[in-house]
Amino acid sequence: MVHQELLAIGRKAKLAARKLAFASTESKNKALLAMSEALLKNEQDILKANRLDVQAAEEKGLKKSLVNRLSLTPEGISQISNALQEVVALRDPVGEGEVWTRPNGLRIQQTRVPLGVVAMIYEARPNVTVDAAALCLKSGNAVILRGGSEALESNKVLGRVIAEAAEGSGLPSGCIQLITETNREWVQQLMRMNEYVDVIIPRGGAGLIQTVVQNSTVPVIETGTGMCHAFVDRDADYEKAIPIVINAKTQNPGVCNALETLLVDEAIAEGFLSRMGQELQNRHVEIKGCPKTCALLPYALPAGEKDWVAEHLDLVLSVKVVANLDEALDHIYQYSTKHSETIITENYSKAQRFLREIDAAAVYVNASTRFTDGGRFGFGAEIGISTQKLHARGPMGLRELTTIKYMICGDGQIVK
Amino acid sequence: MVHQELLAIGRKAKLAARKLAFASTESKNKALLAMSEALLKNEQDILKANRLDVQAAEEKGLKKSLVNRLSLTPEGISQISNALQEVVALRDPVGEGEVWTRPNGLRIQQTRVPLGVVAMIYEARPNVTVDAAALCLKSGNAVILRGGSEALESNKVLGRVIAEAAEGSGLPSGCIQLITETNREWVQQLMRMNEYVDVIIPRGGAGLIQTVVQNSTVPVIETGTGMCHAFVDRDADYEKAIPIVINAKTQNPGVCNALETLLVDEAIAEGFLSRMGQELQNRHVEIKGCPKTCALLPYALPAGEKDWVAEHLDLVLSVKVVANLDEALDHIYQYSTKHSETIITENYSKAQRFLREIDAAAVYVNASTRFTDGGRFGFGAEIGISTQKLHARGPMGLRELTTIKYMICGDGQIVK
Repeated sequence: MVHQELLAIGRKAKLAARKLAFASTESKNKALLAMSEALLKNEQDILKANRLDVQAAEEKGLKKSLVNRLSLTPEGISQISNALQEVVALRDPVGEGEVWTRPNGLRIQQTRVPLGVVAMIYEARPNVTVDAAALCLKSGNAVILRGGSEALESNKVLGRVIAEAAEGSGLPSGCIQLITETNREWVQQLMRMNEYVDVIIPRGGAGLIQTVVQNSTVPVIETGTGMCHAFVDRDADYEKAIPIVINAKTQNPGVCNALETLLVDEAIAEGFLSRMGQELQNRHVEIKGCPKTCALLPYALPAGEKDWVAEHLDLVLSVKVVANLDEALDHIYQYSTKHSETIITENYSKAQRFLREIDAAAVYVNASTRFTDGGRFGFGAEIGISTQKLHARGPMGLRELTTIKYMICGDGQIVK
Repeated sequence: MVHQELLAIGRKAKLAARKLAFASTESKNKALLAMSEALLKNEQDILKANRLDVQAAEEKGLKKSLVNRLSLTPEGISQISNALQEVVALRDPVGEGEVWTRPNGLRIQQTRVPLGVVAMIYEARPNVTVDAAALCLKSGNAVILRGGSEALESNKVLGRVIAEAAEGSGLPSGCIQLITETNREWVQQLMRMNEYVDVIIPRGGAGLIQTVVQNSTVPVIETGTGMCHAFVDRDADYEKAIPIVINAKTQNPGVCNALETLLVDEAIAEGFLSRMGQELQNRHVEIKGCPKTCALLPYALPAGEKDWVAEHLDLVLSVKVVANLDEALDHIYQYSTKHSETIITENYSKAQRFLREIDAAAVYVNASTRFTDGGRFGFGAEIGISTQKLHARGPMGLRELTTIKYMICGDGQIVK
């Protein structure tokens, strides 16, 4: 069954995208500032709607961490509003490019242009509604937002407030649209609306992302599960290794760039693991160890195959003793989701081999995997972290929300 | 049913890709030169195998143009061999990139790396077997080739000769593999081998490409159908317009960048079309016209809806009289496959509007659409012309066969 209302949303987005593609940076910035102000002006309405979502979530017995993600406060709204002003300050990639002239005089300009219509499918985080809309709009794309149903009431108000502000400031009607229907058939249909949607970006857990990758005929930018590894080499400086492992594991364990597996060079396993294990214990990190690890650390639990495969996203760390760098590379090759991997070593050649031979979006030497983030990379903002190889890889900023077109100026050239 | 032999091909390709990713440009060039020589050395075997394909094709009554595409001559083989030496001369994009340093001292290198394993599915053109393999190999990718079954005997010899030469010169076993099984189930399976294949590039007719786009779970780079338009504005210089239209329509009508629809500004329709029509008639081009065109040109046939939608790929041109630039933009918006579009005008503002408002891979002013080609753009070679927006758009050279990875060098940085 085809839902006509959803087709209408698609058609409206496509029409908006046609105009938005050549909106000036000035007009887009004006809209972003209007959106920023409108959020503050409508703070009470937003908080009221959010309270409904939070109450419903608590009644349903949702996990506390999920309820926290869902909850908005006056400070939270002010942060979201400020984030829009930061997007204003970002450089607009549309219209940037390169130019060259062919021997026959044809001047070829390779120019950045928006993708067109971006559909975002995401979980119950109301701030994503505003962030994603702002980044799509700044890069000249119309956006169709489909957030998690637990945030529906908050999203309805946020979506209305920012869409009205954007259109009120002169951007085309339909440039920001929110799907308020929670029927899952709509998502299925959205993923096959190739005529109206240029790209789908799913953001959330592994289940959501796999559903989109498996079912979408619209091109998808896959964002990321991160089965991240750290390899502590025999030539590591422990004063770097220990803080990096602690930081990567504990600073925010629920995110995709957090550490999941620690690989330790056999030559230093005994000395390093006794110190590292103690530091992890002090921070209540549960250790799932290979047999050698368990023999060294009495408090480690035996790791099963799944501990090498799946993200813990919690204060749990899988630990394996490996013979050397080669075994570490093989282990990472087998289990990596190609998100972020780090080596801790003072050895130049091993550092170079790790950088060269590891196939991942971000490969580190002597630094925490937690740096894989658009903000921390210096992009100013991110729409997600791509773990695929086509189009975008790693943190995606405004540039990754654009494509190119060739504009070619001639004076009568024909092909000979 | 899963074909184990095909899984084995995938596995072997993936292993080869792991090593090929950091093969030096020197070693890749050495392999390309060995392949170039091997083709000349095995000329007789290649011609013998090709004769079998050509005979079978003639017995099956294949169209003459298809038999021509299939046929190899000693000069043809020498051209294919020379093309490999041109690939040697191309700049290797692997390892190129940008570097910046964050305030905390982290040095971030955004570096080009190969995609991994590229699968090419293409029609019965034996030269594509060698061209595609060479471009994939130069950009550090392992390649799985699946050519049209009519060229099977030729491809078997070509595939064996170039794979042996590449491996003989030191590249990893499995870097070039040809599928010699013509069972279509194999293609179905190949399109879903996400574990082993990083990208599929279909090259050929619209049917082949749509089959791959609709059925593949592996990311696809869609190459192209080209429903290309030329708009002759009232301010056009006829001395440019007429040669451009003739060139775009007749120089090679069977290709994707050939002209399919001519839009003529009403203000000049009578004068321009009487001259243009005559020139087209002289070149045996059949005209399918809108009612106004048919009223002006007695020899034009009435155009149906399908004449605005589908590629003729033949000496047939759809012609429509439009009120002005706006109607031309609307017509192109509705019917374009976003490949190549051109405007013929001396008016600056209309040229700028066309460049800005047309959404296509290549947008021209006063030049033939036939220039949309990797060689003519100056890329040295092309693996295809992308008509999608993700990853690559327009002619794809070596750079489009790569992705990026971030290599980050620190000295103990952690996230605060």
